[in-house]
Amino acid sequence: MAVSHIRYGAGVSKEVGMDLQNMGAKNVCLMTDKNLSQLPPVQVVMDSLVKNDIDFKFYDNVRVEPTDSSFMDAIEFAKKGAFDAYVAVGGGSTMDTCKAANLYASSPHSDFLDYVNAPIGKGQPVTVPLKPLIAVPTTSGTGSETTGIAVFDYQNLKVKTGIASRAIRPTLGLIDPLHTLYLPDRVVANSGFDVLCHALESYTALPYHMRSPCPSNPIARPAYQGSNPISDIWAVHALRIVAKYLKRAVRNPDDVEARSQMHLASAFAGIGFGNAGVHLCHGMSYPISGLVKTYKAKAYNVDHPLVPHGLSVVLTSPAVFTFTAQMFPERHLETAEILGADVRTARIQDAGPVLADTLRKFLFDLDVDDGLAALGYSPADIPALVKGTLPQERVTKLAPRPQSEEDLSALFEASMKLY
Amino acid sequence: MAVSHIRYGAGVSKEVGMDLQNMGAKNVCLMTDKNLSQLPPVQVVMDSLVKNDIDFKFYDNVRVEPTDSSFMDAIEFAKKGAFDAYVAVGGGSTMDTCKAANLYASSPHSDFLDYVNAPIGKGQPVTVPLKPLIAVPTTSGTGSETTGIAVFDYQNLKVKTGIASRAIRPTLGLIDPLHTLYLPDRVVANSGFDVLCHALESYTALPYHMRSPCPSNPIARPAYQGSNPISDIWAVHALRIVAKYLKRAVRNPDDVEARSQMHLASAFAGIGFGNAGVHLCHGMSYPISGLVKTYKAKAYNVDHPLVPHGLSVVLTSPAVFTFTAQMFPERHLETAEILGADVRTARIQDAGPVLADTLRKFLFDLDVDDGLAALGYSPADIPALVKGTLPQERVTKLAPRPQSEEDLSALFEASMKLY
Repeated sequence: MAVSHIRYGAGVSKEVGMDLQNMGAKNVCLMTDKNLSQLPPVQVVMDSLVKNDIDFKFYDNVRVEPTDSSFMDAIEFAKKGAFDAYVAVGGGSTMDTCKAANLYASSPHSDFLDYVNAPIGKGQPVTVPLKPLIAVPTTSGTGSETTGIAVFDYQNLKVKTGIASRAIRPTLGLIDPLHTLYLPDRVVANSGFDVLCHALESYTALPYHMRSPCPSNPIARPAYQGSNPISDIWAVHALRIVAKYLKRAVRNPDDVEARSQMHLASAFAGIGFGNAGVHLCHGMSYPISGLVKTYKAKAYNVDHPLVPHGLSVVLTSPAVFTFTAQMFPERHLETAEILGADVRTARIQDAGPVLADTLRKFLFDLDVDDGLAALGYSPADIPALVKGTLPQERVTKLAPRPQSEEDLSALFEASMKLY
Repeated sequence: MAVSHIRYGAGVSKEVGMDLQNMGAKNVCLMTDKNLSQLPPVQVVMDSLVKNDIDFKFYDNVRVEPTDSSFMDAIEFAKKGAFDAYVAVGGGSTMDTCKAANLYASSPHSDFLDYVNAPIGKGQPVTVPLKPLIAVPTTSGTGSETTGIAVFDYQNLKVKTGIASRAIRPTLGLIDPLHTLYLPDRVVANSGFDVLCHALESYTALPYHMRSPCPSNPIARPAYQGSNPISDIWAVHALRIVAKYLKRAVRNPDDVEARSQMHLASAFAGIGFGNAGVHLCHGMSYPISGLVKTYKAKAYNVDHPLVPHGLSVVLTSPAVFTFTAQMFPERHLETAEILGADVRTARIQDAGPVLADTLRKFLFDLDVDDGLAALGYSPADIPALVKGTLPQERVTKLAPRPQSEEDLSALFEASMKLY
């Protein structure tokens, strides 16, 4: 496994100008989205660039939940700019867009689908050298500052997919908890659910020695290698932080300790799942957000229907872990205990329901919508949701239990209502 | 913090030829020491290079516990070879020698002292690009495959010092537990003590926000930044493995599980202390091994007196942690508990003695020499040992409690006899 360089602390994002100077950068691309462009996290970074005499161009056209065409727009900007370094200030959408811009500007003759995950794209390995990218996360969920993954909606197929390569991992992540003090409570909750599922899925993913295929050449091995002794450490540690701090971080924007800890947990879980991978909650989340009809999440200032990523991931978690607990029930029970369940009298064969009940209670306490039905889905949508999940083999094959189409239908069905 | 890429598993060292091919290497330097040069770990790597058509030159002149002149010899070899990649197969001595060879061959006009830690050397930051270095550890102690540190005896001053820069960290560590099955029990024990002290020292080091100086430019900050929330995770986890597996690994060479776990613990502790740093046990160990008179460790096949690094580190640990426990007694008590002490009735003010007693028992159980006296030192040597410790400020300043010369004298005095 590998981990990018991260630096943590209140105010570290002020150092970005010095870091760029140390890298010898002279022509920098600063990316963000329109919501953030006037806010302190971007202002702090701009001030640091100016103070350190770093020339930069500003791109604030990142789409929240990006698409192939929004990626393309950023790529065009990057190609024209001929930048020698990138800075992404924002959530997963911004960091992922910036990774794609850096990749395709560094590989200008590639077709967009060349690097997109198979079977939707060609999944070619990245062999071109990329420019340094400094990621400054402003949400506490994606962990994108530590991963080599960039996710987007592929509009033709109405499905989420992405690019996965160690080569696109940021050179440096500046994890500045001060940025999280501006987040609305719903954003903190939904981002936190992403951390929760990164930790739970990577900890319960198929172990690295049971994954197939096992390419003999290391370069051909996927970024998502299955659970392993190193990713386990990160997953469990992130989960403990979520259990202790997420509710506090959601309920009180001034709880600096809780919001700081969640910002760190996001990176920890990112390091874990960036090596181990995720599985069914993420695999099934892509059509849930991709097929959205009219649902617009509260507190998200966007001009299009939107199911926030963390929400789309967590709503299936009770059903998913009930299904997967047949394999590795001890791990499922262990995570339930970390999340607060009293497992002293639990039977090992009840690990799935015990974890599911714990998750339902956790979500209820945090005022989460009551299942997929509350997002506008009905049983009639299930075939389309299943169809959107099938191409997500890169993650769904890491589930500890194989799934038939009938299994997936049943999981969506069971996720329509939670409480 | 940053962590290099590591790959763990039985047989991963066979993949080194493919890794070099993937890196485009055409002219490789393979380094090891004479004890290992005919043994399976080197043979496996050579076979992989041949099988993948990688041209290489073989250097087996690494000195166990290297010196400036043994470093120099390897550097000359590297300069003449104009290599495009390096492979180090061995313990810390080999990996550290290879790091130095790569550094100075990449910076041919530098004087040797330019990159050596101040105050002995100039401690210049490394700005030249280095060649890829793949480290294949064969002992379970140093964690050198994960760190940017190369330690050697500076013969003029009869003292250990080193080079510390993120730039010399290996590109890839191949952690193959099969290699550890050949180790004599004393080598397993002494290497394990290095892991033990890496974990204990990095966990009790001054926290990163209390360290001084605090350079405002990130590039000027030391590799050893003080204990922090990320290094803590690695330290505690490595300590748990040491507590559970070290005795088994020493006592039974066929206990594959125990030896595998210790091989992983070595890397984990390396990731931890490579970011946080070590303090007094390591700072005081350098003169202990540097001033050695006639002691030759059992099972080490060398033609010169030798105190193995892990032994020189661990013998002062009961005295050191008794001294440091005034600061952060909770952490000292926590580590005692991990190492098997019953702390339920311990008073917090007794944290130091409790940890010291636990360590003494641990060492006694593993047949460790009874203190510095057993290595041939007497009270008359203490002034020289103190004098040899004073230049080790880079680490001793990370101790949670500052030390006067009198304090250091008392620590050496208290370490003359353990049981």
